[in-house]
Amino acid sequence: MHTQEPHLTPGTLKVSAKSNPNAVAGALAAVMRERQTAEIQAIGAGAINQAIKAVAIARSYLRDSDMDVVCIPSFITVEISDHERTGMSLAIERRTART
Amino acid sequence: MHTQEPHLTPGTLKVSAKSNPNAVAGALAAVMRERQTAEIQAIGAGAINQAIKAVAIARSYLRDSDMDVVCIPSFITVEISDHERTGMSLAIERRTART
Repeated sequence: MHTQEPHLTPGTLKVSAKSNPNAVAGALAAVMRERQTAEIQAIGAGAINQAIKAVAIARSYLRDSDMDVVCIPSFITVEISDHERTGMSLAIERRTART
Repeated sequence: MHTQEPHLTPGTLKVSAKSNPNAVAGALAAVMRERQTAEIQAIGAGAINQAIKAVAIARSYLRDSDMDVVCIPSFITVEISDHERTGMSLAIERRTART
């Protein structure tokens, strides 16, 4: 974990199967305009699906700023109501958009 | 589309909800040892879930080769039995593993 500057938006977005991919994409694009990296956490197939859609949509939002993002997936263990569940973390990193 | 050298393994992997993420990860790791890029295509939440798991597993397979991969998601339209369906394409690119 890294220490966050107080003025920055939080870098971690938790996405569920009910999340609206457009809304998550807007939030992710806003974070990526401020920060070099972000993280999306999602548990379950429905949530992971929404998360990936959100990244694809965020890429189109960021194109106007000549910015693109990549995602780096890894497994995470999350404790929910005293039960451990395996989820996915998507590390999101900036890169310059390709023309 | 890019022209493939005849000796290279095909760079596109189609993943379904029934795909075994470990098997897909093995195939992806093999492709990435030969090529700079690959593509995973997945239609539906179950398939996208397996695809993302496969990328996370492939990262661990490639770590021994000091290789890491990132994925860049985008929407694709695929024709299945005369019907158009929207799916996800994950462009997979190499990068040097971080230690």
